[in-house]
Amino acid sequence: MMNPLTGRPAKADLDAVIAQLLAQFGQRATTLPGIRQTHANSLTWVAPQPPDIVVFPDTTEEIADIVKLCAKHRVPMIPFGTGTSFEGHVNAPWGGVSIDTSRMNRLLAVHAEDLDCVIEPGMTRKALNEQLRDTGLFFPIDPGADASLGGMVSTRASGTNAVRYGTMKDNVLSLKVVLPNGDIMTTARRAKKSSAGYDLTRLMVGAEGTLGIITEITLKLAGIPEAISAGICPFPSVQAACDATILTIQSGIPVARIELADELQVKAFNLHSNLGLNETPMLFVEFHGTEQSVEEQAKRFGDIAADLGGGPFEWATKAEERSRLWQARHDAYWSALALRPGCKVIATDVCVPISRLAECVVATQEDIKATGVIAPIVGHVGDGNFHLTLLCDMDDPQDIETCRAFLHRLVQRSLAMEGTCTGEHGVGQEKMKYLLDEHPKATLDAMRAIKQALDPLNIMNPGKIVKV
Amino acid sequence: MMNPLTGRPAKADLDAVIAQLLAQFGQRATTLPGIRQTHANSLTWVAPQPPDIVVFPDTTEEIADIVKLCAKHRVPMIPFGTGTSFEGHVNAPWGGVSIDTSRMNRLLAVHAEDLDCVIEPGMTRKALNEQLRDTGLFFPIDPGADASLGGMVSTRASGTNAVRYGTMKDNVLSLKVVLPNGDIMTTARRAKKSSAGYDLTRLMVGAEGTLGIITEITLKLAGIPEAISAGICPFPSVQAACDATILTIQSGIPVARIELADELQVKAFNLHSNLGLNETPMLFVEFHGTEQSVEEQAKRFGDIAADLGGGPFEWATKAEERSRLWQARHDAYWSALALRPGCKVIATDVCVPISRLAECVVATQEDIKATGVIAPIVGHVGDGNFHLTLLCDMDDPQDIETCRAFLHRLVQRSLAMEGTCTGEHGVGQEKMKYLLDEHPKATLDAMRAIKQALDPLNIMNPGKIVKV
Repeated sequence: MMNPLTGRPAKADLDAVIAQLLAQFGQRATTLPGIRQTHANSLTWVAPQPPDIVVFPDTTEEIADIVKLCAKHRVPMIPFGTGTSFEGHVNAPWGGVSIDTSRMNRLLAVHAEDLDCVIEPGMTRKALNEQLRDTGLFFPIDPGADASLGGMVSTRASGTNAVRYGTMKDNVLSLKVVLPNGDIMTTARRAKKSSAGYDLTRLMVGAEGTLGIITEITLKLAGIPEAISAGICPFPSVQAACDATILTIQSGIPVARIELADELQVKAFNLHSNLGLNETPMLFVEFHGTEQSVEEQAKRFGDIAADLGGGPFEWATKAEERSRLWQARHDAYWSALALRPGCKVIATDVCVPISRLAECVVATQEDIKATGVIAPIVGHVGDGNFHLTLLCDMDDPQDIETCRAFLHRLVQRSLAMEGTCTGEHGVGQEKMKYLLDEHPKATLDAMRAIKQALDPLNIMNPGKIVKV
Repeated sequence: MMNPLTGRPAKADLDAVIAQLLAQFGQRATTLPGIRQTHANSLTWVAPQPPDIVVFPDTTEEIADIVKLCAKHRVPMIPFGTGTSFEGHVNAPWGGVSIDTSRMNRLLAVHAEDLDCVIEPGMTRKALNEQLRDTGLFFPIDPGADASLGGMVSTRASGTNAVRYGTMKDNVLSLKVVLPNGDIMTTARRAKKSSAGYDLTRLMVGAEGTLGIITEITLKLAGIPEAISAGICPFPSVQAACDATILTIQSGIPVARIELADELQVKAFNLHSNLGLNETPMLFVEFHGTEQSVEEQAKRFGDIAADLGGGPFEWATKAEERSRLWQARHDAYWSALALRPGCKVIATDVCVPISRLAECVVATQEDIKATGVIAPIVGHVGDGNFHLTLLCDMDDPQDIETCRAFLHRLVQRSLAMEGTCTGEHGVGQEKMKYLLDEHPKATLDAMRAIKQALDPLNIMNPGKIVKV
């Protein structure tokens, strides 16, 4: 029984686990190389590290069985949703069992009066909203990918609506979790708030599957707004767009979405989605409310933009136009590829206090220019959060080195401005090294103590977030 | 060195700690019985358990010194703010050192562009808002008492504004904490969101000082609304008032406050604050926004109320009238005393999904009637959270027994409706017994594992939340 701290599990243990899983799960367990490969990280430049077996459970109890089996043999487990995370979260550095939750994708209950629902973790955000369509409710959190909600909980995901509706941290009421010892816990009751003990819900949100496997999620929902208006507004500079954002937030305008695309990202949108936009920094904005309040919000925003030299504002009044606009925004990752075909996209994110945002984005653009990399910028600027989709030629070691150094400078720049090394993508494998720059040692020690308390064998998604 | 698990610290250890504290802190440390007594629980029927010494540190570093000294001698520490919590949080069941943060009451920074500020934990919510007055910003969370913000963080407090602005959980960006080993950690950067590791901020919020002592708080602030309108609306029944609340929330009206007072509580308000109200269930409501949106919100709420037989709505248009109204609401605790002078007020709270709220309140009123206790009800009904201020004659053992049994039924009723034993007051000493009814054993085990990982000596506010 080899501890994953020191290496892969002993062959006998791994064989025992594989044999037992194949026996118990039949066709719902597989060691096929192709399947194992698709369960390793693939969406970014983190090298894939496939698991030894992939299993597709149907119930919490089945997951508890798998966990107990793996704990007995000290074999690592890696929870898997859609595999759309960027930082190597689903990699299996010491092998082990990928627990794919995609079959656990049911909407278990909708409580319309309470504005909540209960789902299984493999359900994706789009599938949920599809199923909610007739209820007048929706789930607002929207990372770029159609990610599983279990994965979104685990990375503390957010997206374009977070400025108004918060992040996953704010939208999970309760979780059912299989702990690393196989025990099943529920973190909270369905009441909207509680002071009944430690906030285990929030401890699991953003834990990246390192403290347990989420098997059921109670989510807050929002009412579909009576009126929505959206549009795009060009600005003479990134600084002006950021200043408009700050003023919008400060004025208390409850903007639902306010997204920056820099000139290069606008060019990428044009190439990929044929938007025909002027290639200048843009804010994509959206307002939710009553007809009257949406009109008022839009007018106030328009005044702010005009004062800063922005405009003219172009409205997308029809639902289809709005969808096209936001689809283009969500395709930022794919559109970036069009700028340098054949390259790998390295998607990364940082987040700074909004007062430092313009400074941070502008300095990053200068660095891009000086370094000669291709890296369009999009940002959830209402939160001070922005993304780079850096294009890297993975066949060119020099280019890889240049990109790596550039990303390092980006994180250090953000940290120097009281920012964080990741606003919404998570730590995974790639950003572990930055946690010590971001937090004091005592904070990392506390995280490590918690990890060790709940997962003393270090078998639950080991090698992510903190080293133990 | 006696472990507080098994009893009070050894006399030699306690003496050593007291001698060292008196030497280091001079007049800022005291063993005077009167001061020790005011640092034990006093506001409810939980029996006071005074500490052995009270110390008044000025800095984080001084607190780290105290913690290291206490850890060395295994002497319990109890963080103290204003002592206005209800569940015995500041009691010292095994004696020890009360660490009074009242001298650490400074506003350290206001970042107006970022809508945040940095404060010391002994600052009270009213003092903060007083100091923010010229910035156009305010801190919205308002429990009844003028509590210290460190205490509000620790109990995961909320109050009347929570339906719009969230609870303390939603309004803390970062904390500086002295851990039980004396290490100083900061839980997060000042960025508005982050996915950089475990959410230690939320772990400390609501931990009731059992995992560390909070020494600095970065809080989110809100802009003072351009327009505010408030008023009271009578309803024919508690059911009708709750239904109006549900419809208001469901319609997406961003009500800032929506507070229920039952007929007995209205009578208490009349007695204490001379409001001259009809003694029927009332909703106290408040809307924040622009002139136009506030008007629209109020109109929509009025329509909902009228449909349910409520009204007429009485507006408090002037700021002074509004203050008088909300002061009366915040004085619910004191006003209840007027109903049965000479009694002790037992303030308690539960929270249920809003769909079960009317059922829970009505069943509780029936229980009140059947039991013959005096217990007015107020509720943050937009959150499904309500309070009882039960009046108990502490000289009458029979009355104490009746009250105790009644409170037990209240909690069980709430739990049976997917609710929690406390929405905002916290667990403290008195509600520990209910956590096992509220959570599965695995959840309590996880809480205990975390407590033991961070406080292996069990010296940080021991005897609260979880038994170890």
